[in-house]
Amino acid sequence: MSYAARANALVLQSGGPTAVINQTLAGILTAARRNAKQIKTVYGAFHGLHGLLNENLLDLSELPEHVLEGLAQTPGAALGSARLKPKREDLDRLFEVFHEHRIRYVFYIGGNDSAEAAQLIRSEANERHHGLHILHVPKTIDNDLMETDHSPGYGSVARVAAHVLLGDDLDNRSFYNGIKINICMGRHAGWIAAASALARRCVENEDRENCGPHLIYMPERSFSEEQFIRDIQETYDRIGRATVVVAEGIADQLRNSRFAGEKDEFGNAQLSGSGKLGDYLAHSIEKHLRVKSNLGKLRVRSDTWGYLQRSLPGMVSVVDSQEAFEVGAAAVEFMLQGATDKTVVLKRVSDIPYSSMPALVDLALVAQKTKHVPAQMINAAGNGVTNAFYDYVLPLVGELPKAYSLGSVGKVNKKLTAYVRS
Amino acid sequence: MSYAARANALVLQSGGPTAVINQTLAGILTAARRNAKQIKTVYGAFHGLHGLLNENLLDLSELPEHVLEGLAQTPGAALGSARLKPKREDLDRLFEVFHEHRIRYVFYIGGNDSAEAAQLIRSEANERHHGLHILHVPKTIDNDLMETDHSPGYGSVARVAAHVLLGDDLDNRSFYNGIKINICMGRHAGWIAAASALARRCVENEDRENCGPHLIYMPERSFSEEQFIRDIQETYDRIGRATVVVAEGIADQLRNSRFAGEKDEFGNAQLSGSGKLGDYLAHSIEKHLRVKSNLGKLRVRSDTWGYLQRSLPGMVSVVDSQEAFEVGAAAVEFMLQGATDKTVVLKRVSDIPYSSMPALVDLALVAQKTKHVPAQMINAAGNGVTNAFYDYVLPLVGELPKAYSLGSVGKVNKKLTAYVRS
Repeated sequence: MSYAARANALVLQSGGPTAVINQTLAGILTAARRNAKQIKTVYGAFHGLHGLLNENLLDLSELPEHVLEGLAQTPGAALGSARLKPKREDLDRLFEVFHEHRIRYVFYIGGNDSAEAAQLIRSEANERHHGLHILHVPKTIDNDLMETDHSPGYGSVARVAAHVLLGDDLDNRSFYNGIKINICMGRHAGWIAAASALARRCVENEDRENCGPHLIYMPERSFSEEQFIRDIQETYDRIGRATVVVAEGIADQLRNSRFAGEKDEFGNAQLSGSGKLGDYLAHSIEKHLRVKSNLGKLRVRSDTWGYLQRSLPGMVSVVDSQEAFEVGAAAVEFMLQGATDKTVVLKRVSDIPYSSMPALVDLALVAQKTKHVPAQMINAAGNGVTNAFYDYVLPLVGELPKAYSLGSVGKVNKKLTAYVRS
Repeated sequence: MSYAARANALVLQSGGPTAVINQTLAGILTAARRNAKQIKTVYGAFHGLHGLLNENLLDLSELPEHVLEGLAQTPGAALGSARLKPKREDLDRLFEVFHEHRIRYVFYIGGNDSAEAAQLIRSEANERHHGLHILHVPKTIDNDLMETDHSPGYGSVARVAAHVLLGDDLDNRSFYNGIKINICMGRHAGWIAAASALARRCVENEDRENCGPHLIYMPERSFSEEQFIRDIQETYDRIGRATVVVAEGIADQLRNSRFAGEKDEFGNAQLSGSGKLGDYLAHSIEKHLRVKSNLGKLRVRSDTWGYLQRSLPGMVSVVDSQEAFEVGAAAVEFMLQGATDKTVVLKRVSDIPYSSMPALVDLALVAQKTKHVPAQMINAAGNGVTNAFYDYVLPLVGELPKAYSLGSVGKVNKKLTAYVRS
């Protein structure tokens, strides 16, 4: 199979969107325009593999510059996403589409499932002795891709988690006896839950041990409902309240089939888009917590952050945004140098000042694999993070807000006898 | 009962916190410091009426300037909040505390329940011929206070609602067949739900009719589950998806007691902090929507925005922040001119350029009353807003993000026969 010197390129966006996934699309398009001698037309698959199978392609070459710039800063998958895994017979169809539209370069923006899909397509190309070049370009808020220091999309969701938890803890402490449970995304890895710990770093004039999140539960550690209740009891006994973060993936560990939602073609059960887990855990705390009598009723609430955490405009990490663009642009350069069957990763070059650079690793090292939060970033009790995690995450999220409390403001001496309210 | 020329002041924060409620505290403290000849010490009640009854007072006079500035920008009620309604015997106690601590000036920061509490305290003062001055200073994300153009706290939550819904709609459209239901706060009034409509104003290069929120349900109109399903069916049939916003208060209209949570002393049932309503409505759509067969499975999700909407740092409206400070500072000036038994309101002086000024109205016009979204701001079908609402809300929220789509980018002509996936 031969192509002319100038071949066409195709971009797919796949899996859950992020706040910066369109930066990666913009990076690819910008670099492709810079290399117009080799890349003729850039097509976009409308809704990923769906679009490719149904030959729903968009011609992105004529996209005006100002739209591309605006698009880059718009969350969500502009091309449309999909969660399909190519079947045997799908592969035949894909190569028909590639052939008909002279597509030689494929950029598959996605997470580890997309890396698997890219690998399946590439294996088929090998069998066919087909000159297709395919690169996987990383994107996932879950930060669970192997080999890369972190995934584009994670810095922004980590930034959102810090803000949301900080606000939530300030809200919770406004009341007596508040136990607040937050369910965040993270099916197999606790990276987002861990990032909520950044809220503590926002607190300026107070003992950070008193500030939430007081407890963080990640799928890396086995979840025990009994321990969960004991942990919250201990925090409540100490400071009269608790702000808790739970990664949705711990639902898989509960002896309760009610949390099993629908599954996609990669076998991933739906966990988000429902408040069930939070309601279940809140109910459990209401039932089991021993409450101090003098402070009024226990106030247990749960919030499930849901989809807003991954697609929130106005709270994007600048570093994340830049890196998301860079992995896209680098993918084009790498491919035109002959690379295929690889994934783009980010190598951390320096912590202070922070810098990173794109590099390539074999797809096989990433596909179907999950990077967990490593043991040295999780505390011994399995309900919080260590300083190693802060060192890792702080450069990725940008400047955080500062929060003040009344601090050591003076308590006024009491002059009256105690009041017992009827 | 007589006081020295210099008397003490007391501040309470009450009800649900907001992102800017501490600006109002800062406004009061700043103006009090400016008027040190008349106001000696400013006390804060730790957790509102709780703190007052239990004589848990804080001396705010010595709060360092830089902490006050930082505090002003920190969401949540820094003094601690409460949801107590003063009982007959509580009133006796309150006046004991006022007497012992030489408190002449009381600033009650809160919503309509707090206005009612302030009114009860003031009536007691009248009966006692007591020289207490009390002003209610408005605060509520719900924007349901009578007489004022809008309430401090609303501009910021409206800004959050615009961002969250914009991100959510971009997320939803990333997939096929997505029906997304968002539950936002608003027990009796639909102001927050209405504000989500601002997301459409962020869209730059696309028909805004295609952009979410496609449907908004507010407690001002009677909610029919059958109509809800029909509305979503119509939107789905037109554009293949729907992003929907429902104010939590419509739960009261469902023939289903499962949504009745615990109640506070003002009789308000807990609606937030649980995903039940969203899950219920999502299930109803899953059961009843007629799905086009060629687009794959229906994808129904619900998110309940919960507490993060009202206390999110990093997304505060500048106008809201300034006005929250101003109503606090104005309350001090008004009171020192002799005002009591009033609430501070914001009068809109001009739309373009926007300006407002504080004024006073009688507490009785505000206490226990609810300002609903007026009929001219709700569309005829009762599932969206009119331009009158946009004119009202746009000056309050600050600059909004801009969102771009691929717009009219060219579809590539198909060359192959249709593909039927097995």
